[in-house]
Amino acid sequence: MTTLIDGKKTAREIRAWVADEVARTVRERGRVPALATVLVGDDPASAVYVAAKRSAIREAGMGDVHRALPPHASQAEVAAVIDELAQDRDVSGILLQLPLPGGLDAGALIDRIPAGKDVDGLTTTSAGLLARGADGLRPCTPAGVLKLLDTEGVPLRGAHAVVVGHSELVGRPMARMLLQRDATVTVAHRHTLRLASVTRQADILVVATGVPGLIGADHVKPGAVVVDVGIHRTPGGLQGDVRARELDGHAGLLTPVPGGVGPMTIAMLLANTLAAARQSPSRS
Amino acid sequence: MTTLIDGKKTAREIRAWVADEVARTVRERGRVPALATVLVGDDPASAVYVAAKRSAIREAGMGDVHRALPPHASQAEVAAVIDELAQDRDVSGILLQLPLPGGLDAGALIDRIPAGKDVDGLTTTSAGLLARGADGLRPCTPAGVLKLLDTEGVPLRGAHAVVVGHSELVGRPMARMLLQRDATVTVAHRHTLRLASVTRQADILVVATGVPGLIGADHVKPGAVVVDVGIHRTPGGLQGDVRARELDGHAGLLTPVPGGVGPMTIAMLLANTLAAARQSPSRS
Repeated sequence: MTTLIDGKKTAREIRAWVADEVARTVRERGRVPALATVLVGDDPASAVYVAAKRSAIREAGMGDVHRALPPHASQAEVAAVIDELAQDRDVSGILLQLPLPGGLDAGALIDRIPAGKDVDGLTTTSAGLLARGADGLRPCTPAGVLKLLDTEGVPLRGAHAVVVGHSELVGRPMARMLLQRDATVTVAHRHTLRLASVTRQADILVVATGVPGLIGADHVKPGAVVVDVGIHRTPGGLQGDVRARELDGHAGLLTPVPGGVGPMTIAMLLANTLAAARQSPSRS
Repeated sequence: MTTLIDGKKTAREIRAWVADEVARTVRERGRVPALATVLVGDDPASAVYVAAKRSAIREAGMGDVHRALPPHASQAEVAAVIDELAQDRDVSGILLQLPLPGGLDAGALIDRIPAGKDVDGLTTTSAGLLARGADGLRPCTPAGVLKLLDTEGVPLRGAHAVVVGHSELVGRPMARMLLQRDATVTVAHRHTLRLASVTRQADILVVATGVPGLIGADHVKPGAVVVDVGIHRTPGGLQGDVRARELDGHAGLLTPVPGGVGPMTIAMLLANTLAAARQSPSRS
Protein backbone atom coordinates (compact mmCIF):
# COMPACT_ATOMS: atom_id res chain seq x y z
CA MET A 1 0.00 0.00 0.00
CA THR A 2 1.24 3.45 -0.86
CA THR A 3 0.63 6.21 1.66
CA LEU A 4 0.24 9.71 0.29
CA ILE A 5 2.16 12.40 2.17
CA ASP A 6 -0.23 15.21 3.02
CA GLY A 7 1.76 18.37 2.31
CA LYS A 8 -1.29 20.55 2.70
CA LYS A 9 -1.83 19.42 6.26
CA THR A 10 1.81 19.87 7.29
CA ALA A 11 1.96 23.24 5.55
CA ARG A 12 -1.21 24.33 7.38
CA GLU A 13 0.32 23.31 10.71
CA ILE A 14 3.51 25.24 10.00
CA ARG A 15 1.58 28.31 8.93
CA ALA A 16 -0.52 28.17 12.10
CA TRP A 17 2.66 27.82 14.18
CA VAL A 18 4.27 30.75 12.38
CA ALA A 19 1.16 32.89 12.98
CA ASP A 20 1.30 32.09 16.72
CA GLU A 21 4.98 32.91 16.88
CA VAL A 22 4.50 36.13 14.94
CA ALA A 23 1.84 37.19 17.44
CA ARG A 24 4.25 36.39 20.27
CA THR A 25 7.09 38.34 18.61
CA VAL A 26 4.82 41.34 18.16
CA ARG A 27 3.73 41.10 21.82
CA GLU A 28 7.19 40.60 23.29
CA ARG A 29 9.34 42.71 20.98
CA GLY A 30 6.81 45.19 19.66
CA ARG A 31 7.94 44.40 16.20
CA VAL A 32 6.09 42.99 13.19
CA PRO A 33 8.14 40.64 10.98
CA ALA A 34 7.76 41.71 7.36
CA LEU A 35 8.53 40.26 3.95
CA ALA A 36 9.37 42.46 1.00
CA THR A 37 8.56 40.95 -2.39
CA VAL A 38 10.16 42.40 -5.51
CA LEU A 39 8.45 41.68 -8.82
CA VAL A 40 10.05 42.86 -12.07
CA GLY A 41 7.99 42.78 -15.26
CA ASP A 42 4.57 41.39 -16.03
CA ASP A 43 5.01 37.64 -16.34
CA PRO A 44 1.54 36.33 -15.39
CA ALA A 45 2.82 33.20 -13.58
CA SER A 46 5.24 35.28 -11.47
CA ALA A 47 2.41 37.67 -10.60
CA VAL A 48 0.28 34.73 -9.40
CA TYR A 49 3.12 33.30 -7.28
CA VAL A 50 3.92 36.66 -5.69
CA ALA A 51 0.24 37.28 -4.94
CA ALA A 52 0.01 33.88 -3.21
CA LYS A 53 3.11 34.61 -1.11
CA ARG A 54 1.86 38.06 -0.08
CA SER A 55 -1.52 36.68 0.86
CA ALA A 56 0.11 33.97 3.03
CA ILE A 57 2.34 36.58 4.67
CA ARG A 58 -0.63 38.77 5.60
CA GLU A 59 -2.58 35.77 6.82
CA ALA A 60 0.28 34.95 9.21
CA GLY A 61 0.09 38.48 10.63
CA MET A 62 3.32 39.64 9.01
CA GLY A 63 3.97 42.87 7.19
CA ASP A 64 3.57 42.77 3.41
CA VAL A 65 5.93 45.15 1.61
CA HIS A 66 5.81 45.04 -2.17
CA ARG A 67 7.80 46.66 -4.94
CA ALA A 68 6.75 46.26 -8.57
CA LEU A 69 9.11 47.32 -11.37
CA PRO A 70 8.36 47.61 -15.07
CA PRO A 71 9.57 44.94 -17.55
CA HIS A 72 12.33 47.20 -18.82
CA ALA A 73 13.72 48.18 -15.43
CA SER A 74 17.51 48.41 -15.56
CA GLN A 75 19.97 46.45 -13.45
CA ALA A 76 20.72 49.66 -11.50
CA GLU A 77 17.04 50.34 -10.85
CA VAL A 78 16.40 46.86 -9.46
CA ALA A 79 19.63 47.06 -7.46
CA ALA A 80 18.54 50.37 -5.93
CA VAL A 81 15.23 48.86 -4.79
CA ILE A 82 16.98 45.89 -3.20
CA ASP A 83 19.53 48.17 -1.50
CA GLU A 84 16.74 50.28 -0.04
CA LEU A 85 14.98 47.18 1.33
CA ALA A 86 18.30 45.83 2.62
CA GLN A 87 18.73 48.97 4.73
CA ASP A 88 15.12 49.16 5.90
CA ARG A 89 14.99 47.89 9.48
CA ASP A 90 11.26 47.24 9.18
CA VAL A 91 11.91 44.67 6.45
CA SER A 92 12.87 41.23 7.82
CA GLY A 93 13.18 39.34 4.56
CA ILE A 94 13.55 40.12 0.85
CA LEU A 95 12.30 37.92 -1.94
CA LEU A 96 13.27 38.71 -5.53
CA GLN A 97 10.79 36.79 -7.67
CA LEU A 98 12.48 34.70 -10.38
CA PRO A 99 12.85 34.43 -13.31
CA LEU A 100 13.77 38.03 -14.10
CA PRO A 101 13.23 39.55 -17.54
CA GLY A 102 16.10 38.93 -19.97
CA GLY A 103 19.04 41.28 -19.73
CA LEU A 104 19.11 41.41 -15.93
CA ASP A 105 21.88 39.60 -14.06
CA ALA A 106 19.88 37.66 -11.46
CA GLY A 107 22.93 36.35 -9.58
CA ALA A 108 24.35 39.83 -9.01
CA LEU A 109 20.97 41.16 -7.85
CA ILE A 110 20.37 38.23 -5.49
CA ASP A 111 23.80 38.83 -3.96
CA ARG A 112 22.75 42.36 -2.94
CA ILE A 113 20.32 40.78 -0.46
CA PRO A 114 22.03 40.58 2.96
CA ALA A 115 22.35 36.94 4.13
CA GLY A 116 20.21 37.76 7.17
CA LYS A 117 17.30 38.76 4.93
CA ASP A 118 17.81 36.08 2.31
CA VAL A 119 14.54 34.16 2.89
CA ASP A 120 14.95 32.28 -0.40
CA GLY A 121 18.40 31.06 0.70
CA LEU A 122 19.86 31.77 -2.73
CA THR A 123 22.70 34.23 -2.10
CA THR A 124 26.33 33.13 -2.38
CA THR A 125 26.68 33.53 1.38
CA SER A 126 23.62 31.38 2.14
CA ALA A 127 24.84 28.71 -0.30
CA GLY A 128 28.26 28.83 1.37
CA LEU A 129 26.78 28.52 4.86
CA LEU A 130 24.84 25.45 3.72
CA ALA A 131 27.93 23.99 2.03
CA ARG A 132 29.89 24.49 5.26
CA GLY A 133 27.08 23.07 7.38
CA ALA A 134 26.73 26.36 9.26
CA ASP A 135 23.49 28.00 10.41
CA GLY A 136 21.70 30.07 7.80
CA LEU A 137 18.51 30.47 5.82
CA ARG A 138 17.87 27.50 3.53
CA PRO A 139 16.08 27.47 0.15
CA CYS A 140 12.36 26.95 0.77
CA THR A 141 11.57 23.99 -1.47
CA PRO A 142 14.30 21.60 -0.28
CA ALA A 143 13.67 22.77 3.30
CA GLY A 144 10.01 21.87 2.79
CA VAL A 145 10.92 18.42 1.46
CA LEU A 146 13.10 17.78 4.50
CA LYS A 147 10.29 18.89 6.78
CA LEU A 148 7.87 16.46 5.12
CA LEU A 149 10.35 13.59 5.51
CA ASP A 150 10.83 14.47 9.18
CA THR A 151 7.10 14.78 9.76
CA GLU A 152 6.61 11.29 8.30
CA GLY A 153 9.44 9.95 10.47
CA VAL A 154 11.55 8.83 7.49
CA PRO A 155 15.03 7.92 8.78
CA LEU A 156 17.75 9.81 6.91
CA ARG A 157 21.03 8.71 8.47
CA GLY A 158 22.49 5.90 6.40
CA ALA A 159 19.56 5.94 3.99
CA HIS A 160 20.43 6.11 0.30
CA ALA A 161 18.84 9.27 -1.06
CA VAL A 162 18.86 9.88 -4.80
CA VAL A 163 18.12 13.39 -6.04
CA VAL A 164 17.21 13.63 -9.72
CA GLY A 165 17.92 17.10 -11.07
CA HIS A 166 20.80 19.40 -10.12
CA SER A 167 19.24 22.86 -10.30
CA GLU A 168 20.54 25.62 -8.08
CA LEU A 169 17.07 26.16 -6.58
CA VAL A 170 16.24 22.59 -5.63
CA GLY A 171 18.49 19.68 -6.61
CA ARG A 172 21.87 20.91 -5.41
CA PRO A 173 20.77 22.38 -2.06
CA MET A 174 18.55 19.32 -1.50
CA ALA A 175 21.57 17.04 -1.93
CA ARG A 176 23.61 19.14 0.50
CA MET A 177 20.83 19.11 3.09
CA LEU A 178 20.40 15.33 2.87
CA LEU A 179 24.16 14.88 3.18
CA GLN A 180 24.12 17.12 6.23
CA ARG A 181 21.70 14.63 7.75
CA ASP A 182 24.10 11.75 7.05
CA ALA A 183 22.25 10.16 4.17
CA THR A 184 24.31 8.55 1.41
CA VAL A 185 23.46 10.91 -1.43
CA THR A 186 23.51 10.47 -5.20
CA VAL A 187 22.75 13.31 -7.58
CA ALA A 188 21.52 12.22 -11.01
CA HIS A 189 20.60 14.52 -13.91
CA ARG A 190 20.20 14.76 -17.64
CA HIS A 191 23.68 13.40 -18.29
CA THR A 192 23.17 10.35 -16.08
CA LEU A 193 23.37 7.06 -17.97
CA ARG A 194 20.95 4.24 -17.06
CA LEU A 195 18.88 6.53 -14.85
CA ALA A 196 16.52 3.76 -13.70
CA SER A 197 19.38 1.65 -12.35
CA VAL A 198 20.52 4.65 -10.29
CA THR A 199 17.09 5.68 -8.99
CA ARG A 200 16.11 2.09 -8.15
CA GLN A 201 18.74 2.15 -5.40
CA ALA A 202 17.00 4.96 -3.58
CA ASP A 203 15.41 4.50 -0.19
CA ILE A 204 14.39 8.13 -0.67
CA LEU A 205 13.92 9.47 -4.20
CA VAL A 206 13.54 13.22 -4.72
CA VAL A 207 12.60 14.19 -8.26
CA ALA A 208 13.03 17.78 -9.44
CA THR A 209 13.70 17.65 -13.15
CA GLY A 210 11.05 19.79 -14.77
CA VAL A 211 10.20 16.87 -17.08
CA PRO A 212 6.55 15.81 -16.69
CA GLY A 213 6.12 12.11 -15.94
CA LEU A 214 9.82 11.24 -16.26
CA ILE A 215 9.81 8.75 -13.39
CA GLY A 216 7.67 5.61 -13.36
CA ALA A 217 7.49 2.30 -11.51
CA ASP A 218 10.59 0.99 -13.32
CA HIS A 219 12.62 3.74 -11.63
CA VAL A 220 11.50 3.01 -8.10
CA LYS A 221 12.45 0.34 -5.60
CA PRO A 222 9.32 -1.21 -4.05
CA GLY A 223 8.57 0.49 -0.74
CA ALA A 224 10.72 3.57 -1.42
CA VAL A 225 9.80 7.09 -0.34
CA VAL A 226 9.16 9.20 -3.45
CA VAL A 227 9.07 13.00 -3.33
CA ASP A 228 7.82 14.71 -6.48
CA VAL A 229 8.89 18.35 -6.70
CA GLY A 230 7.61 18.83 -10.27
CA ILE A 231 4.37 20.57 -11.13
CA HIS A 232 3.12 20.93 -14.69
CA ARG A 233 -0.15 22.07 -16.18
CA THR A 234 -1.22 19.41 -18.71
CA PRO A 235 -4.45 18.78 -20.63
CA GLY A 236 -5.20 16.07 -18.06
CA GLY A 237 -4.73 18.45 -15.11
CA LEU A 238 -1.75 19.15 -12.86
CA GLN A 239 1.00 16.56 -13.09
CA GLY A 240 4.39 16.05 -11.47
CA ASP A 241 7.70 14.62 -12.66
CA VAL A 242 6.45 11.23 -11.44
CA ARG A 243 3.80 9.02 -13.05
CA ALA A 244 1.89 8.78 -9.80
CA ARG A 245 -0.65 6.20 -10.93
CA GLU A 246 2.09 3.69 -11.72
CA LEU A 247 3.52 4.09 -8.23
CA ASP A 248 0.29 3.38 -6.40
CA GLY A 249 0.83 0.14 -4.52
CA HIS A 250 4.55 0.23 -5.43
CA ALA A 251 6.09 3.17 -3.55
CA GLY A 252 5.95 3.19 0.25
CA LEU A 253 5.28 6.91 0.64
CA LEU A 254 4.54 9.37 -2.14
CA THR A 255 3.92 13.11 -2.30
CA PRO A 256 0.90 13.85 -4.49
CA VAL A 257 0.76 16.64 -7.08
CA PRO A 258 -0.89 18.92 -6.18
CA GLY A 259 -0.93 18.90 -2.39
CA GLY A 260 2.52 17.48 -1.70
CA VAL A 261 5.66 19.59 -1.89
CA GLY A 262 3.93 22.66 -3.40
CA PRO A 263 2.19 23.95 -0.26
CA MET A 264 5.39 23.45 1.76
CA THR A 265 7.37 26.00 -0.24
CA ILE A 266 5.21 28.90 0.92
CA ALA A 267 5.06 27.52 4.47
CA MET A 268 8.87 27.46 4.63
CA LEU A 269 9.03 30.98 3.22
CA LEU A 270 6.91 32.12 6.16
CA ALA A 271 9.11 30.17 8.58
CA ASN A 272 12.25 31.73 7.04
CA THR A 273 10.78 35.24 7.31
CA LEU A 274 10.03 34.64 10.99
CA ALA A 275 13.55 33.28 11.56
CA ALA A 276 15.07 36.28 9.77
CA ALA A 277 13.04 38.68 11.92
CA ARG A 278 14.17 36.95 15.10
CA GLN A 279 17.83 37.05 14.15
CA SER A 280 17.86 40.70 13.22
CA PRO A 281 19.08 43.17 15.83
CA SER A 282 16.34 44.73 17.98
CA ARG A 283 15.49 48.34 17.44
CA SER A 284 15.83 50.36 20.53
CA MET B 1 46.88 -3.77 -16.25
CA THR B 2 46.73 -0.93 -13.80
CA THR B 3 48.34 2.36 -14.82
CA LEU B 4 49.70 4.52 -12.02
CA ILE B 5 48.82 8.20 -12.27
CA ASP B 6 52.01 10.21 -11.94
CA GLY B 7 51.07 13.11 -9.69
CA LYS B 8 54.67 14.18 -9.29
CA LYS B 9 55.07 14.70 -13.02
CA THR B 10 51.84 16.67 -13.41
CA ALA B 11 52.62 18.72 -10.32
CA ARG B 12 56.08 19.50 -11.68
CA GLU B 13 54.58 20.66 -14.99
CA ILE B 14 52.08 22.91 -13.22
CA ARG B 15 54.79 24.38 -11.02
CA ALA B 16 56.98 25.08 -14.06
CA TRP B 17 54.01 26.71 -15.82
CA VAL B 18 53.25 28.83 -12.73
CA ALA B 19 56.90 29.93 -12.53
CA ASP B 20 56.80 31.03 -16.18
CA GLU B 21 53.55 32.90 -15.65
CA VAL B 22 54.87 34.55 -12.50
CA ALA B 23 57.90 35.79 -14.45
CA ARG B 24 55.58 37.16 -17.13
CA THR B 25 53.35 38.86 -14.54
CA VAL B 26 56.39 40.48 -12.95
CA ARG B 27 57.62 41.63 -16.37
CA GLU B 28 54.29 42.95 -17.62
CA ARG B 29 52.72 44.30 -14.46
CA GLY B 30 55.78 44.99 -12.36
CA ARG B 31 54.24 43.07 -9.56
CA VAL B 32 55.33 39.95 -7.69
CA PRO B 33 52.50 37.60 -6.64
CA ALA B 34 52.94 36.73 -2.97
CA LEU B 35 51.50 34.18 -0.57
CA ALA B 36 51.17 34.92 3.13
CA THR B 37 51.19 31.85 5.36
CA VAL B 38 49.89 32.13 8.91
CA LEU B 39 51.01 29.48 11.38
CA VAL B 40 49.62 29.46 14.91
CA GLY B 41 51.30 27.30 17.55
CA ASP B 42 54.05 24.72 17.33
CA ASP B 43 52.46 21.60 15.89
CA PRO B 44 55.41 19.88 14.18
CA ALA B 45 53.39 18.49 11.25
CA SER B 46 51.90 21.92 10.53
CA ALA B 47 55.37 23.45 10.63
CA VAL B 48 56.57 20.91 8.06
CA TYR B 49 53.61 21.56 5.76
CA VAL B 50 54.01 25.33 5.95
CA ALA B 51 57.75 25.07 5.27
CA ALA B 52 57.05 22.96 2.17
CA LYS B 53 54.51 25.48 0.90
CA ARG B 54 56.83 28.44 1.48
CA SER B 55 59.69 26.70 -0.27
CA ALA B 56 57.48 25.93 -3.31
CA ILE B 57 56.28 29.55 -3.38
CA ARG B 58 59.85 30.88 -3.43
CA GLU B 59 60.86 28.34 -6.04
CA ALA B 60 58.08 29.64 -8.31
CA GLY B 61 59.47 33.17 -7.95
CA MET B 62 56.63 34.39 -5.76
CA GLY B 63 56.87 36.44 -2.61
CA ASP B 64 56.93 34.51 0.67
CA VAL B 65 55.28 36.38 3.55
CA HIS B 66 55.08 34.52 6.83
CA ARG B 67 53.47 35.20 10.18
CA ALA B 68 54.07 32.88 13.14
CA LEU B 69 51.94 33.21 16.26
CA PRO B 70 52.47 31.53 19.63
CA PRO B 71 50.30 28.55 20.69
CA HIS B 72 48.29 30.70 23.06
CA ALA B 73 47.53 33.50 20.61
CA SER B 74 44.00 34.77 21.14
CA GLN B 75 41.23 34.87 18.55
CA ALA B 76 41.65 38.66 18.36
CA GLU B 77 45.40 38.40 17.82
CA VAL B 78 45.04 35.93 14.94
CA ALA B 79 42.20 38.03 13.51
CA ALA B 80 44.36 41.15 13.59
CA VAL B 81 47.13 39.40 11.63
CA ILE B 82 44.67 38.18 9.00
CA ASP B 83 43.08 41.63 8.74
CA GLU B 84 46.47 43.23 8.21
CA LEU B 85 47.31 40.75 5.43
CA ALA B 86 43.84 41.21 3.93
CA GLN B 87 44.56 44.92 3.53
CA ASP B 88 48.12 44.53 2.32
CA ARG B 89 48.12 45.06 -1.45
CA ASP B 90 51.44 43.26 -1.77
CA VAL B 91 49.83 40.04 -0.51
CA SER B 92 47.97 38.11 -3.22
CA GLY B 93 46.84 35.13 -1.17
CA ILE B 94 46.44 34.19 2.50
CA LEU B 95 46.75 30.68 3.86
CA LEU B 96 45.80 30.00 7.47
CA GLN B 97 47.40 26.65 8.30
CA LEU B 98 44.94 24.19 9.87
CA PRO B 99 44.28 22.74 12.36
CA LEU B 100 44.45 25.64 14.78
CA PRO B 101 45.19 25.18 18.48
CA GLY B 102 42.08 24.41 20.54
CA GLY B 103 40.04 27.40 21.67
CA LEU B 104 40.31 29.26 18.36
CA ASP B 105 37.25 29.47 16.10
CA ALA B 106 38.75 28.43 12.75
CA GLY B 107 35.59 29.13 10.74
CA ALA B 108 35.38 32.72 11.93
CA LEU B 109 39.07 33.33 11.26
CA ILE B 110 38.92 31.80 7.77
CA ASP B 111 35.97 34.04 6.96
CA ARG B 112 38.13 37.13 7.59
CA ILE B 113 40.13 36.21 4.49
CA PRO B 114 38.72 38.13 1.50
CA ALA B 115 37.38 35.74 -1.18
CA GLY B 116 39.90 37.17 -3.66
CA LYS B 117 42.81 36.09 -1.43
CA ASP B 118 41.28 32.78 -0.31
CA VAL B 119 43.83 30.47 -1.95
CA ASP B 120 42.61 27.50 0.12
CA GLY B 121 39.04 28.05 -1.15
CA LEU B 122 37.62 27.51 2.32
CA THR B 123 35.73 30.72 3.12
CA THR B 124 31.93 30.79 3.14
CA THR B 125 32.01 32.97 0.03
CA SER B 126 34.31 30.59 -1.88
CA ALA B 127 32.14 27.62 -0.84
CA GLY B 128 29.06 29.54 -1.99
CA LEU B 129 30.65 30.43 -5.34
CA LEU B 130 31.44 26.76 -5.89
CA ALA B 131 27.94 25.71 -4.82
CA ARG B 132 26.47 28.19 -7.30
CA GLY B 133 28.86 27.13 -10.04
CA ALA B 134 30.36 30.63 -10.22
CA ASP B 135 34.02 31.53 -10.75
CA GLY B 136 36.15 31.50 -7.64
CA LEU B 137 39.16 29.96 -5.94
CA ARG B 138 38.68 26.23 -5.32
CA PRO B 139 40.11 24.08 -2.50
CA CYS B 140 43.52 22.80 -3.58
CA THR B 141 43.19 19.06 -3.00
CA PRO B 142 39.95 18.46 -4.95
CA ALA B 143 41.18 20.89 -7.62
CA GLY B 144 44.34 18.78 -7.87
CA VAL B 145 42.32 15.58 -8.22
CA LEU B 146 40.28 17.10 -11.02
CA LYS B 147 43.46 18.23 -12.76
CA LEU B 148 44.88 14.69 -12.58
CA LEU B 149 41.67 13.25 -14.06
CA ASP B 150 41.78 15.81 -16.86
CA THR B 151 45.46 15.18 -17.52
CA GLU B 152 44.73 11.47 -17.87
CA GLY B 153 41.81 12.21 -20.19
CA VAL B 154 39.24 10.56 -17.90
CA PRO B 155 35.75 11.46 -19.20
CA LEU B 156 33.62 13.01 -16.47
CA ARG B 157 30.28 13.82 -18.12
CA GLY B 158 27.88 10.97 -17.46
CA ALA B 159 30.49 9.00 -15.52
CA HIS B 160 29.42 7.71 -12.12
CA ALA B 161 31.79 9.23 -9.57
CA VAL B 162 31.68 8.02 -5.99
CA VAL B 163 33.36 10.15 -3.33
CA VAL B 164 34.02 8.39 -0.04
CA GLY B 165 34.30 10.89 2.82
CA HIS B 166 32.35 14.11 3.25
CA SER B 167 34.87 16.42 4.87
CA GLU B 168 34.66 20.14 4.29
CA LEU B 169 38.22 20.21 2.94
CA VAL B 170 37.99 17.42 0.40
CA GLY B 171 34.89 15.24 0.09
CA ARG B 172 32.17 17.86 -0.14
CA PRO B 173 33.91 20.29 -2.51
CA MET B 174 35.12 17.31 -4.59
CA ALA B 175 31.52 16.14 -5.03
CA ARG B 176 30.43 19.63 -6.06
CA MET B 177 33.25 19.96 -8.57
CA LEU B 178 32.48 16.58 -10.15
CA LEU B 179 28.79 17.49 -10.34
CA GLN B 180 29.76 20.74 -12.02
CA ARG B 181 31.41 18.63 -14.69
CA ASP B 182 28.19 16.64 -15.21
CA ALA B 183 29.23 13.42 -13.53
CA THR B 184 26.58 11.46 -11.67
CA VAL B 185 27.89 11.85 -8.14
CA THR B 186 27.41 9.76 -5.02
CA VAL B 187 28.82 10.80 -1.66
CA ALA B 188 29.39 7.95 0.79
CA HIS B 189 30.74 8.25 4.34
CA ARG B 190 30.92 6.62 7.71
CA HIS B 191 27.15 6.25 7.93
CA THR B 192 26.87 4.56 4.54
CA LEU B 193 25.52 1.02 4.71
CA ARG B 194 27.01 -1.67 2.42
CA LEU B 195 29.85 0.62 1.36
CA ALA B 196 31.33 -1.88 -1.11
CA SER B 197 28.07 -2.14 -3.06
CA VAL B 198 28.07 1.66 -3.41
CA THR B 199 31.74 2.06 -4.35
CA ARG B 200 31.63 -0.86 -6.82
CA GLN B 201 29.38 1.27 -9.03
CA ALA B 202 32.03 3.92 -9.47
CA ASP B 203 33.64 4.60 -12.80
CA ILE B 204 35.68 7.10 -10.79
CA LEU B 205 36.28 6.44 -7.09
CA VAL B 206 37.75 9.21 -4.94
CA VAL B 207 38.67 8.10 -1.42
CA ALA B 208 39.28 10.69 1.30
CA THR B 209 38.31 9.08 4.58
CA GLY B 210 41.37 9.30 6.79
CA VAL B 211 41.10 5.55 7.42
CA PRO B 212 44.27 3.72 6.31
CA GLY B 213 43.59 0.85 3.90
CA LEU B 214 39.80 1.11 4.07
CA ILE B 215 39.25 0.36 0.40
CA GLY B 216 40.32 -2.91 -1.25
CA ALA B 217 39.61 -4.87 -4.42
CA ASP B 218 36.12 -5.82 -3.20
CA HIS B 219 35.18 -2.15 -3.26
CA VAL B 220 36.29 -1.47 -6.81
CA LYS B 221 34.76 -2.27 -10.18
CA PRO B 222 37.37 -3.80 -12.51
CA GLY B 223 38.86 -1.09 -14.70
CA ALA B 224 37.71 1.81 -12.52
CA VAL B 225 39.75 4.96 -11.91
CA VAL B 226 40.77 5.10 -8.24
CA VAL B 227 42.04 8.28 -6.60
CA ASP B 228 43.50 7.89 -3.13
CA VAL B 229 43.60 11.14 -1.15
CA GLY B 230 44.69 9.51 2.11
CA ILE B 231 48.23 9.56 3.42
CA HIS B 232 49.25 7.85 6.64
CA ARG B 233 52.58 7.10 8.24
CA THR B 234 52.56 3.39 9.16
CA PRO B 235 55.26 0.98 10.33
CA GLY B 236 55.33 -0.31 6.74
CA GLY B 237 55.86 3.17 5.26
CA LEU B 238 53.46 5.71 3.82
CA GLN B 239 50.03 4.29 3.05
CA GLY B 240 46.78 5.65 1.64
CA ASP B 241 43.11 4.93 2.28
CA VAL B 242 43.35 2.30 -0.46
CA ARG B 243 45.08 -1.10 -0.26
CA ALA B 244 47.05 -0.39 -3.39
CA ARG B 245 48.58 -3.84 -3.78
CA GLU B 246 45.14 -5.46 -4.03
CA LEU B 247 44.19 -3.10 -6.82
CA ASP B 248 47.17 -3.82 -9.02
CA GLY B 249 45.78 -5.47 -12.15
CA HIS B 250 42.22 -4.69 -10.99
CA ALA B 251 41.82 -0.91 -11.18
CA GLY B 252 42.26 0.81 -14.53
CA LEU B 253 44.06 3.88 -13.21
CA LEU B 254 45.31 4.43 -9.68
CA THR B 255 47.04 7.28 -7.87
CA PRO B 256 49.96 5.97 -5.82
CA VAL B 257 50.76 7.04 -2.24
CA PRO B 258 53.09 8.86 -2.13
CA GLY B 259 53.42 10.59 -5.49
CA GLY B 260 49.76 10.78 -6.51
CA VAL B 261 47.42 13.41 -5.10
CA GLY B 262 49.87 14.75 -2.50
CA PRO B 263 52.17 16.73 -4.83
CA MET B 264 49.12 18.20 -6.59
CA THR B 265 47.89 20.02 -3.50
CA ILE B 266 50.91 22.31 -3.36
CA ALA B 267 50.91 22.73 -7.15
CA MET B 268 47.29 23.93 -7.03
CA LEU B 269 48.12 26.27 -4.15
CA LEU B 270 50.70 27.93 -6.40
CA ALA B 271 48.19 28.10 -9.26
CA ASN B 272 45.58 29.64 -6.92
CA THR B 273 48.07 32.24 -5.67
CA LEU B 274 48.88 33.20 -9.26
CA ALA B 275 45.16 33.41 -10.11
CA ALA B 276 44.52 35.55 -7.03
CA ALA B 277 47.34 37.92 -7.99
CA ARG B 278 45.97 38.29 -11.51
CA GLN B 279 42.45 39.04 -10.34
CA SER B 280 43.47 41.67 -7.84
CA PRO B 281 43.26 45.30 -8.94
CA SER B 282 46.47 46.76 -10.36
CA ARG B 283 48.39 49.25 -8.29
CA SER B 284 48.87 52.47 -10.05
